[in-house]
Amino acid sequence: MQRSGEKPRVKLVLAEAALETVPREIWGHPAVYKSARRRGKPPSSILLDRSIHHQAMKKLPGAEKRGRPDIVHFSLLEALSSPLNREGLLEVYVHTLNDYVVFVDPSTRLPRNYNRFTGLMEQLLELGRVPPKGKPLLWLKPMKLERLLEEVGASYVILLSEDGEPRRLREVAEEALEKAPRAAVVVGAFPHGDFTEETKRLATRIYSIYRGKPLDTWTVVSHFLALAADMLNLI
Amino acid sequence: MQRSGEKPRVKLVLAEAALETVPREIWGHPAVYKSARRRGKPPSSILLDRSIHHQAMKKLPGAEKRGRPDIVHFSLLEALSSPLNREGLLEVYVHTLNDYVVFVDPSTRLPRNYNRFTGLMEQLLELGRVPPKGKPLLWLKPMKLERLLEEVGASYVILLSEDGEPRRLREVAEEALEKAPRAAVVVGAFPHGDFTEETKRLATRIYSIYRGKPLDTWTVVSHFLALAADMLNLI
Repeated sequence: MQRSGEKPRVKLVLAEAALETVPREIWGHPAVYKSARRRGKPPSSILLDRSIHHQAMKKLPGAEKRGRPDIVHFSLLEALSSPLNREGLLEVYVHTLNDYVVFVDPSTRLPRNYNRFTGLMEQLLELGRVPPKGKPLLWLKPMKLERLLEEVGASYVILLSEDGEPRRLREVAEEALEKAPRAAVVVGAFPHGDFTEETKRLATRIYSIYRGKPLDTWTVVSHFLALAADMLNLI
Repeated sequence: MQRSGEKPRVKLVLAEAALETVPREIWGHPAVYKSARRRGKPPSSILLDRSIHHQAMKKLPGAEKRGRPDIVHFSLLEALSSPLNREGLLEVYVHTLNDYVVFVDPSTRLPRNYNRFTGLMEQLLELGRVPPKGKPLLWLKPMKLERLLEEVGASYVILLSEDGEPRRLREVAEEALEKAPRAAVVVGAFPHGDFTEETKRLATRIYSIYRGKPLDTWTVVSHFLALAADMLNLI
């Protein structure tokens, strides 16, 4: 069934994602040094990960939003495995806290194992693409969220945030489908804290889908994708 | 809002889950020995994990269904973080391939990090509960799926399988909510292959929600929970 020819694709953006290599300020910290040595890599090449670098991260500015690559991992797995993506009706982008954008081929089969995923992300951040040769599945560009939205033609930006206007997720999905392909749904991929003002300014609409309470990123992603798939009679 | 007092809870069972410690037959395999030593544990105490023990697993019967604790990890994270669970409207159980059942306190905050999750599961399989003292969050009993369903009063068993009768997931969620609390939705938590005949015989209904095509366990779980939450106006 060639659905992708019939229907426009919804754009999903994981924004300000807590995905980065260990920043220079803490390369010398014992927890960082030890974890890098165990991996056989320099500290500059390994991902910042709160579950390992918790002590070292205390010194970092904005630490509460950083060091959670698992959020990108789960959320991308939900996005790529979803019926919406499998029918060719989804585009997914990851914008990071440091203003890089990860472009994702929709046919990518990500590693299910977290340690393999972090290895892949480290390769991506080092080489700018994976696999290193042939057709890339993931590729990286230094890019602000604003420019990403421009480049992909997302002129109607729906930001999901617990501070937004209360709205049924079903209505959010309906609006995103109606406004596709120029709609982008933006979900924060950081553990705590709020979007930057710079991000909020890009939003056409800001909605809260759970009565002002926070939800995990993967929950927002999967529940949005489920309601969109239901509306399109995919499931 | 005291929703849990008003509405019955839906039961979700992750069945035949690919969660077990390394079986005796391959304790001596170099890949197993090496990974156990690195963890400072005996081979009998570490989880079987295809991403590490792939070579060693070739000798195991039914290997294609085994060694994927990440499936339980993602699916439990989706279940526990879901609005349905947060409103007190979900019970979740994990039945393993070896006929153990993991009982889960709905307020459990599981480790997001995979390596911490496997450590927790290893403790659970060794001690039968976690944490070792105080109110348990997870606890384990040797128990067949049939007895679990009896014990929790699940007399209306909806099994989701790509071989089942085609059915909209929305209708599955509606049926589960209508028949609650005696309904259980059973989802396979193994990577490949089919449910055993023993499991299939327990089903009142067998439905396929994606036109006969397989979906990842966490996709089925999250999409089911999203449609149920939508129907109950939680999101």
